[in-house]
Amino acid sequence: MKKLINHPNRLVEDMLEGYVAAYSDYIRYEPGSRVVLRCLPKKQGVGLVIGNGSGHEPIAMGWVGQGMLDANAVGDIFTAPPPELILEALRKANLGQGCLLLISNHAGDVLNGELAVEMAREEGLRVEPLLMYDDIASAPKGRESERRGAPGTTFIYKLVGARAEEGASLRELLELGSLVRDSTRSLSVAIRPGISPLTGEAMFTLAEDEIFIGMGVHGEAGFKRQKLAPAAEVVRTVTEAILDDLPFRFGDEVLVLVNGAGATTLGELLVVYRELDAVLKGRGVHPYKPLVGTYITTQEMAGVSVALCRTTPELNRLWDSPCRVPFFGR
Amino acid sequence: MKKLINHPNRLVEDMLEGYVAAYSDYIRYEPGSRVVLRCLPKKQGVGLVIGNGSGHEPIAMGWVGQGMLDANAVGDIFTAPPPELILEALRKANLGQGCLLLISNHAGDVLNGELAVEMAREEGLRVEPLLMYDDIASAPKGRESERRGAPGTTFIYKLVGARAEEGASLRELLELGSLVRDSTRSLSVAIRPGISPLTGEAMFTLAEDEIFIGMGVHGEAGFKRQKLAPAAEVVRTVTEAILDDLPFRFGDEVLVLVNGAGATTLGELLVVYRELDAVLKGRGVHPYKPLVGTYITTQEMAGVSVALCRTTPELNRLWDSPCRVPFFGR
Repeated sequence: MKKLINHPNRLVEDMLEGYVAAYSDYIRYEPGSRVVLRCLPKKQGVGLVIGNGSGHEPIAMGWVGQGMLDANAVGDIFTAPPPELILEALRKANLGQGCLLLISNHAGDVLNGELAVEMAREEGLRVEPLLMYDDIASAPKGRESERRGAPGTTFIYKLVGARAEEGASLRELLELGSLVRDSTRSLSVAIRPGISPLTGEAMFTLAEDEIFIGMGVHGEAGFKRQKLAPAAEVVRTVTEAILDDLPFRFGDEVLVLVNGAGATTLGELLVVYRELDAVLKGRGVHPYKPLVGTYITTQEMAGVSVALCRTTPELNRLWDSPCRVPFFGR
Repeated sequence: MKKLINHPNRLVEDMLEGYVAAYSDYIRYEPGSRVVLRCLPKKQGVGLVIGNGSGHEPIAMGWVGQGMLDANAVGDIFTAPPPELILEALRKANLGQGCLLLISNHAGDVLNGELAVEMAREEGLRVEPLLMYDDIASAPKGRESERRGAPGTTFIYKLVGARAEEGASLRELLELGSLVRDSTRSLSVAIRPGISPLTGEAMFTLAEDEIFIGMGVHGEAGFKRQKLAPAAEVVRTVTEAILDDLPFRFGDEVLVLVNGAGATTLGELLVVYRELDAVLKGRGVHPYKPLVGTYITTQEMAGVSVALCRTTPELNRLWDSPCRVPFFGR
């Protein structure tokens, strides 16, 4: 396997040790615990926590800090952390006003997250789970809650994180998170597979002239293989599917993420944004301070996700509010 | 060629149009001119300018803004911009106190940069060029000024940019830039080639178990092919070569960049930092707020550069000083 690592079995520990060594002014963790915490905790308020599998960096450990996450329980590669580890993250993030546990809709994350919530409640800790889903490729309209969590969850981390920093209640954060989730849709295109550090093999196969629309963040099957086409054409297909799903309407303002899956160049992502901007404006939909970059990855997979969130002046204010984390910023 | 673009001939224009559409609150450019400018120019002071070829994004257009560059003349893929375009960037960045033109040491950049300086001076514009070089693979010790510009130039953009924002004189900026350059060394390792958008072909070849130490940012040949080894071993080889070159000594404090060439995962970069940190501390060299990420790319090449800059309290202050650009931040 051609990766610059020591050994697949040590990858997560080595990565965490490197992270805390380089960014000790932002984050901390107790060796062995695999819970990444912010250096400067909030003085008060609700703890914002997620447990997730590794292999998608910078999400989620790169987003621990002021204005985003209070704690991240770090699982093995592409594997949800065990409930006990999520529980530990909840305990550490709790400042007496309870925690919101973000759960991206993938079977293991849901199972272990719900178990952790039960265990926490048995200890008298106030915790609410927020299930996150946004990927329109993974279940049809009308069955939104069966959809996978995908890069559109970024809006929840940022907007709920900003409000949590301001001291909002658990109930308010749960409502805000649900609103953002229900206002968000995303869709991905895979160009080339990444290499799994677990197997050393490509995570799926694609012909040299083929792309896959609807691929999930662990290489889950998409819904349509098609020939590679000019960016304008591919982006139109993806964007119209997203716009029609919510649906987004003439006059809507939207937050926008164009996310690279790992190996896609920033040049390509900016070309994608150009085409996306044209499709949105052609439908009378107005982007607000778009974010373009590589934030939610599947190792060195090449591909692009487009995510849109119907926004409001209050959500824009939270989008703009300062955050200080190592790997997020606009 | 499997890239999500419209056509190789339109790539630079499409990318620039996408960039200004997404980040119009940060940067601006006049269509056709290919000079990227900051939205909010400095009120006064020396203009900081670079011309460089495209294909290495986010550098340099992603670093235009408060606390870094005032203008970037954007060339074609892997091609220096013509002198007339660099001249245009110098004119636009000049606020009456002249400009510092950064020139990364590559033949075309030097030729066109020097011509632009001559043309600007003929117009009465005060301009000083600063030649940047840091890659120890490309010329032996004692012939430092023949070395290529490589990711260690990052320290010049950030530190000189911070001082330019504070209103320092052209003479002072030139001295500061020279000091930072002379205190910086870097070395790269290539793992897998990127695909040139010009030819659609891989930019070099490497066997499946082979890495190349000393590769340049355009795929220029390195000095040593060797078998892929554990990260600890590769990083020790690279770091000791850098430490011995300046040389860095026991008790030195250093700024650190671990840069991904494009397709290398953040997980790998953090593992590299872990190993680097151990080698540095073993030699009594103290890292100051390291930067880890994908900043200077060669398309979707996989690889890592390590850059070290011997620092001082004043350089640390400039490293910490705020900057507001779309694609740089710690």
